[in-house]
Amino acid sequence: MRMDTFPQLEHWFEHRVSYGETDCMGYVYYAEYFHIFERGRSEFIRSRGKSYTYVEEHGIFLPVREARCRYRMPARYDYLLRVRTGIAELGRASVTFAYEVRHDGDLLSTGMTQHACVNASGSPVAMPAWLRNLIVNGACD
Amino acid sequence: MRMDTFPQLEHWFEHRVSYGETDCMGYVYYAEYFHIFERGRSEFIRSRGKSYTYVEEHGIFLPVREARCRYRMPARYDYLLRVRTGIAELGRASVTFAYEVRHDGDLLSTGMTQHACVNASGSPVAMPAWLRNLIVNGACD
Amino acid sequence: MRMDTFPQLEHWFEHRVSYGETDCMGYVYYAEYFHIFERGRSEFIRSRGKSYTYVEEHGIFLPVREARCRYRMPARYDYLLRVRTGIAELGRASVTFAYEVRHDGDLLSTGMTQHACVNASGSPVAMPAWLRNLIVNGACD
Amino acid sequence: MRMDTFPQLEHWFEHRVSYGETDCMGYVYYAEYFHIFERGRSEFIRSRGKSYTYVEEHGIFLPVREARCRYRMPARYDYLLRVRTGIAELGRASVTFAYEVRHDGDLLSTGMTQHACVNASGSPVAMPAWLRNLIVNGACD
Repeated sequence: MRMDTFPQLEHWFEHRVSYGETDCMGYVYYAEYFHIFERGRSEFIRSRGKSYTYVEEHGIFLPVREARCRYRMPARYDYLLRVRTGIAELGRASVTFAYEVRHDGDLLSTGMTQHACVNASGSPVAMPAWLRNLIVNGACD
Repeated sequence: MRMDTFPQLEHWFEHRVSYGETDCMGYVYYAEYFHIFERGRSEFIRSRGKSYTYVEEHGIFLPVREARCRYRMPARYDYLLRVRTGIAELGRASVTFAYEVRHDGDLLSTGMTQHACVNASGSPVAMPAWLRNLIVNGACD
Repeated sequence: MRMDTFPQLEHWFEHRVSYGETDCMGYVYYAEYFHIFERGRSEFIRSRGKSYTYVEEHGIFLPVREARCRYRMPARYDYLLRVRTGIAELGRASVTFAYEVRHDGDLLSTGMTQHACVNASGSPVAMPAWLRNLIVNGACD
Repeated sequence: MRMDTFPQLEHWFEHRVSYGETDCMGYVYYAEYFHIFERGRSEFIRSRGKSYTYVEEHGIFLPVREARCRYRMPARYDYLLRVRTGIAELGRASVTFAYEVRHDGDLLSTGMTQHACVNASGSPVAMPAWLRNLIVNGACD
């Protein structure tokens, strides 16, 4: 992921680091970033006008196929993180989110998650037009 | 819970503390003990001859109604904890587990969880004889 | 804890349920409430004018001695929980927080955590006047 | 990561899936695999004759610089996972672990973590000979 090309469809939200997210090295534990990324994509979808619950209720699920994170600088307890979420790629039957976690101007970490588009029985399906439209243009109703 | 009367129906298992379970105070985070207790009651049921999956597959669920933990001494990364699980009370439609977490002879924490007995639609039901029998006597098939 | 006497020193904050907080029964996993309680007491202290980081930097730590939660109704993914935190008791060398988790008017769970007041080397100490004052009256500088 | 070339320096351990690791889709939550990977590398190092605590006590820390996971098939509650951990690369000042998570012959997921080698003040340092030797040959005392 190149930082100079962060996707234009983007959303920012803030996340306060809790004690339970840190480890005995004194920093946020590396797996916690994936929880934060999940909050990022939930809020991204909500910012388009619907919640991810709405997506599931309409029969589409987006299980994670791949996840990555690069850790550049550590985060500490009580940091108010600024989390940027964008659409890195919108495939025929998949969607890839990109993430940045920032604090006080510092880029702490970057990451991505790739999601398959599946139906309620878990079979891969092409992303329906309404979902693609929701992601790109936002809800119109 | 009085330590001199730890329930006789009991089971021990070992749990290795991971980095992810600790916090920036250097010790196991307080909420993690409830994960460990869950492992304790799962292993307790397994030690009786069936898994908790078997219980659910037979239509009985045991959601937590109440949970408590007392923290006496902290646990550190890499400790090999010895976890004791017992049946503190077997009600008509509930079951209460008691727990102890030990390390090197020290009693680090004690706890309890009380569970309702409900059916697949979430309604409280009397504990079926087969489950009571499983808990008290173990599986006979 | 009696609900008719929720402590007057109180603070409310909102918490959005993430996927990672749920379990395969479809609800928020029982241990997650203790993470939410931690966020509640952090925000309570912040609402008084200082962060818990400030407390630690001034040599006082508040490790959990006891924690309890009662589960009345389950919480689901994407619920926007309203969390109420109050001071149930302010002892000579301890502090007890009370919590309520609500959604859409429903009381989902109640809980408490009792904390010892210790110094940097872990020895119990009387709560300093500045901390008692911070909790009761808020920061004055 | 190519599966046909899993590193020869390897270690296997078993991990039981708990309720707390699952989410409301019914499977192990994607971030939990990174906790399992951490257990894998801890047990790998232990299998060489020393614990990671020993490494830290000798002034070397291995913070994660990058982490990846590919999710091929989901894991369910109560699965007894078989986790394979190996050394994918041993750099001058870094080490890369590779992971596989299996169940009943199925390959559920693969992953990697890359770690910097730093001293107690967080500065990158060349991996000391004793640590390289521990990883490659195991402890000899």
